[in-house]
Amino acid sequence: MTRRDLLKSVGAITAAVAGASVSRTAMAALPEPVIQTSPNTMDPLVPTTGRPYNPVVTLNGWTLPWRMNNGVKEFHLVAEPVVRELAPGMNAHLWGYNGQSPGPTIEVVEGDRVRIFVTNKLPEHTSVHWHGQRLPNGMDGVSGLTQPSIKPGQTFVYEFIARRPGTFMYHPHADEMVQMAMGMMGMWITHPKEAHPHIAEVDRDFCFLLNAYDIEPGSATPKIMTMTDFNLWTWNSRVFPGIDPLVVRKNDQVRIRVGNLTMTNHPIHIHGHEFTVTGTDGGPIPLSARRPEVTTDIAVGQMRQIELLADEEGDWAFHCHKSHHTMNAMGHDVPTMIGVDHSGLMQKINKLVPDYMVMGDRGMADMAEMQMPLPANTLPMMTGQGPFGGIEMGGMFSVFKVRADQAKGDYTDPGWFTHPKGTVAYEWTGPTPESHHATPAPAGAEVELQVKKPATHQH
Amino acid sequence: MTRRDLLKSVGAITAAVAGASVSRTAMAALPEPVIQTSPNTMDPLVPTTGRPYNPVVTLNGWTLPWRMNNGVKEFHLVAEPVVRELAPGMNAHLWGYNGQSPGPTIEVVEGDRVRIFVTNKLPEHTSVHWHGQRLPNGMDGVSGLTQPSIKPGQTFVYEFIARRPGTFMYHPHADEMVQMAMGMMGMWITHPKEAHPHIAEVDRDFCFLLNAYDIEPGSATPKIMTMTDFNLWTWNSRVFPGIDPLVVRKNDQVRIRVGNLTMTNHPIHIHGHEFTVTGTDGGPIPLSARRPEVTTDIAVGQMRQIELLADEEGDWAFHCHKSHHTMNAMGHDVPTMIGVDHSGLMQKINKLVPDYMVMGDRGMADMAEMQMPLPANTLPMMTGQGPFGGIEMGGMFSVFKVRADQAKGDYTDPGWFTHPKGTVAYEWTGPTPESHHATPAPAGAEVELQVKKPATHQH
Amino acid sequence: MTRRDLLKSVGAITAAVAGASVSRTAMAALPEPVIQTSPNTMDPLVPTTGRPYNPVVTLNGWTLPWRMNNGVKEFHLVAEPVVRELAPGMNAHLWGYNGQSPGPTIEVVEGDRVRIFVTNKLPEHTSVHWHGQRLPNGMDGVSGLTQPSIKPGQTFVYEFIARRPGTFMYHPHADEMVQMAMGMMGMWITHPKEAHPHIAEVDRDFCFLLNAYDIEPGSATPKIMTMTDFNLWTWNSRVFPGIDPLVVRKNDQVRIRVGNLTMTNHPIHIHGHEFTVTGTDGGPIPLSARRPEVTTDIAVGQMRQIELLADEEGDWAFHCHKSHHTMNAMGHDVPTMIGVDHSGLMQKINKLVPDYMVMGDRGMADMAEMQMPLPANTLPMMTGQGPFGGIEMGGMFSVFKVRADQAKGDYTDPGWFTHPKGTVAYEWTGPTPESHHATPAPAGAEVELQVKKPATHQH
Repeated sequence: MTRRDLLKSVGAITAAVAGASVSRTAMAALPEPVIQTSPNTMDPLVPTTGRPYNPVVTLNGWTLPWRMNNGVKEFHLVAEPVVRELAPGMNAHLWGYNGQSPGPTIEVVEGDRVRIFVTNKLPEHTSVHWHGQRLPNGMDGVSGLTQPSIKPGQTFVYEFIARRPGTFMYHPHADEMVQMAMGMMGMWITHPKEAHPHIAEVDRDFCFLLNAYDIEPGSATPKIMTMTDFNLWTWNSRVFPGIDPLVVRKNDQVRIRVGNLTMTNHPIHIHGHEFTVTGTDGGPIPLSARRPEVTTDIAVGQMRQIELLADEEGDWAFHCHKSHHTMNAMGHDVPTMIGVDHSGLMQKINKLVPDYMVMGDRGMADMAEMQMPLPANTLPMMTGQGPFGGIEMGGMFSVFKVRADQAKGDYTDPGWFTHPKGTVAYEWTGPTPESHHATPAPAGAEVELQVKKPATHQH
Repeated sequence: MTRRDLLKSVGAITAAVAGASVSRTAMAALPEPVIQTSPNTMDPLVPTTGRPYNPVVTLNGWTLPWRMNNGVKEFHLVAEPVVRELAPGMNAHLWGYNGQSPGPTIEVVEGDRVRIFVTNKLPEHTSVHWHGQRLPNGMDGVSGLTQPSIKPGQTFVYEFIARRPGTFMYHPHADEMVQMAMGMMGMWITHPKEAHPHIAEVDRDFCFLLNAYDIEPGSATPKIMTMTDFNLWTWNSRVFPGIDPLVVRKNDQVRIRVGNLTMTNHPIHIHGHEFTVTGTDGGPIPLSARRPEVTTDIAVGQMRQIELLADEEGDWAFHCHKSHHTMNAMGHDVPTMIGVDHSGLMQKINKLVPDYMVMGDRGMADMAEMQMPLPANTLPMMTGQGPFGGIEMGGMFSVFKVRADQAKGDYTDPGWFTHPKGTVAYEWTGPTPESHHATPAPAGAEVELQVKKPATHQH
Repeated sequence: MTRRDLLKSVGAITAAVAGASVSRTAMAALPEPVIQTSPNTMDPLVPTTGRPYNPVVTLNGWTLPWRMNNGVKEFHLVAEPVVRELAPGMNAHLWGYNGQSPGPTIEVVEGDRVRIFVTNKLPEHTSVHWHGQRLPNGMDGVSGLTQPSIKPGQTFVYEFIARRPGTFMYHPHADEMVQMAMGMMGMWITHPKEAHPHIAEVDRDFCFLLNAYDIEPGSATPKIMTMTDFNLWTWNSRVFPGIDPLVVRKNDQVRIRVGNLTMTNHPIHIHGHEFTVTGTDGGPIPLSARRPEVTTDIAVGQMRQIELLADEEGDWAFHCHKSHHTMNAMGHDVPTMIGVDHSGLMQKINKLVPDYMVMGDRGMADMAEMQMPLPANTLPMMTGQGPFGGIEMGGMFSVFKVRADQAKGDYTDPGWFTHPKGTVAYEWTGPTPESHHATPAPAGAEVELQVKKPATHQH
């Protein structure tokens, strides 16, 4: 295999340099950090060094390339301020790693010896905790407790063996509340070194983190003291319609790995299918303990592996089931206008303030169409266009696209689903009686009629 | 069986009309909608058409009658503004279906072909998503993504086969946050068509939805932008003491199906028994994966089937374990008065404002008795009278009444439990020593004494 | 065994008084209550009367001694206002039992007949509900529903058999929201009477309750109307660094029993190990239903038994994973200063207000060091000193200390862990290239290089 072949076959790549060996880590220079400039979903990073594995796809993210150094996988993370596009039209000023928030996914194989260089380009000290790993206590990354903090400008070295296969994450354990509220986190996948009875081989393997921000409309920096009233509920620091769809081939076995670093539970829900949670950051769940779900509640600091057979074609909503988490930033203090007739008031106000609009006297669906003037760098609260009109969503919402004709391993967005004839809900245009008895069924109809009202009650 | 017999034997009924068959749906008129005017619990709707099943009882709700049309079960839902009595003394202006919020329960049998007509009488567009169902993508009800929205005045038709037995729900997927905050939701039960190894036959089968509203004292319409600070935590849009008791016969096998469409988790707790969660909206839980619980946490967008043997007689509290969720509306900004002596202040204020009352300087139990003047259309925060005095509850609280002499299938409230003699906690009227040594045990007593204080500590 | 031996062998003790028997409860005087004055962790209370069991250790708490009376275990709880030290430097004015909040742990054996005297020294009525117990309905402790409330000054008697082994709790069911917000709660352990296939024998058995308070900086009494914005997240009414470490011997089997009486879920997370949830307040979890975890979400009103093998030496963080719950009280309305240059402003303000400090323009890690002037009776938001500097934590945080040389049954804090040489993350002092190509690997190095940037993306 030539170098050209390698470059062609993988999305990002580690390039082999020939030969001999070094005796000490220090003989090799600090690896140059790999920086990401795009918020798009990177193709899976197929490994060309080390042991093989089936790589994951990080939703609106990427996997960090490494170098092999005497059998050790070396990664270089740079903690730094970043500008992250939450969706086209809004950039957030976050803290992250290697150019984006979240940081890149780290993928290794069970038994790999891993060395991670962490350079601190933040204005304050930091550390990295390797959530869920078995490792020497001094590599656990708890600033003050297991190591000194990494001061601005310093580079620290972590080294341990990835002992357990599974889905993990990394994040600071120094000024932790602030640094996570600013977006510092990333995923870690340890692939099994051999077949494991509770770890299935799958056709598609997605991963992402749940995070949340409180950014006032018109501004770009999160308010880091917010405990509950976040206004941007994000997947890998992206909101709908900025979140890529999860594209699969019909009958693919699909794994979706989700971790939560917000301040509340997120019930992750899929339409049209059932799934099973097959693993946690503690390890694979034995088969006997599994249960079917359509909504799994992911608590803070938990990783969950969801697995399903994608056997229903279509564009299936995939989202957090908390309705406020599928909306973009809004003011929660807006009074309810439902049922109030503002027509007269509106005319009077509009004489004084021509832009003034009353929100929501008939619900809020109008708002998606009203094109209210928004502050700069602010997304609409309800947005997204589908094949049948406005989707009226935001935040933690995406589409699970199942296609019979999607090529194996192809993650390209196939566009909207083409429904078979007669399978879409449709408007009724038949007889609409004032009352049933006023509009009897036609002669010869095999119709059983209902009485008008329930007859009896308990009390 | 005559038509009269049918009407007599069931709560609400579908009446058979003889005969022949129609070739197209359109030949039959749109079914006249069945409207509910009462917030009381309807007796189970025993099926008289289609395949038989053991019907559920919807707590403070009802089951929607259907008509059979050429082998298809046809239902008609009307989305519309409703007035719902939350408890005697308070009406809320909500949006719902067929006269109430939540909408009626839909009950079908696995394998049934179902056609649902949905008429929109709201001031804005809507759609209906059939949460948890396997169905054609175009019947999934996600406005914009899988169908056009249903405009005011339109009627849409959904049609699919109920493929999986289980506990499901329906709700809008259009202006979703607002429409669910206004009360639009309902349950869907698909009964198994034959014996299933993981679906038990039970003697009583209850169901209800968890919902929540933010209605300011004195008003009637929910504030639809509220994300966390709801003040009315409801079961099927009812609060204690407006929630009916769950009445069962001793040694009944009981199933309770609960779904959550609020914005937070609800830990549902029962007294005096243990239960098992036997199914989710994803399907039945295999026996090997079940665990005993007295409190199960139901996340948003989840349905849970709780099952237990009601083998302990009595009036057992059954409630959400979050203490604020078993209270009715209050101001959360009220300052703490515990430990403050207001006696002098009170006298002065009462000269100026005769009605003024200081709340809570000795806790808040007084408030249940004080009969503070409440705004119109507002419930007391802590209320309900039991056989031993004030229960001091509200919100998500009811009583699980287990009686040895309750007739099979009888859901009538039997009143309060008659406790066997000597089984109620009682006031101590015996010797009360200043200290133990000052009041020695009587001569001849087989009493082992304790020393006064723990002797050693870790530090 | 002499009385002296008994006193020597146990922390707190029940002393045997010889002989004959009484025929009625009333013949014995009310047991003198045992009062606790210390917030420290009491050594396990080894039983010397009744059936033997392996006692638990209550974190920063204690077990209530009892007396045997004709084969009945008699306990005396006193509900009363208490002053609880949350951590050195801050006392809270709470309501509790027998001198502290939470109340003492009650430990019994499956099958024990238990009589509990409850004296009410609060300014309002109360009751005690025995959460999770099977008992006569009239002993369930729901004021108004199953018994009259216990008025101030009254003593009530509860009596029942502890039928199920497991982890339970007790708390008021009268003015419940207020009384739990004030700290009234305690744990109840029923040990199995014989070997049970799903209840393991363990070497260490810890327990504690999750609770939360809203106490304004500078004050001492909780605001009892708070529903979500608590500012002190506590374990047994203690916050870090006031929470004792959990000290174990390497390869100990460890059980940790945790109950939640706050208003939100707490995801309890351990570093460096995996654990299994082996039981709930509903009973032991069958082996087939268990799953590995590193973070388990404990819902309100739930008890969870966590079990693990402590096979990794070190000082392992053990905490709630919600980042705001490992902080002490702060103002949540503080604006974000990250990225704002205040240097000029600071100079101007300091002329007017010499004490003024800008918080957080470079994150908040500085704050742990800045020694901002705090109001009296207030803890720093981020605090705690470790062997490597400030730990910058508060609230629900402790350290799980695993030592090879810890004696069996010794709970004494061993101090900080001594790391084996070369196992602590360290600063990189080797070559730091501007770019990789500018700093080639040394000749002969077996290094595989990475390309600088990921090459392809999905879009």
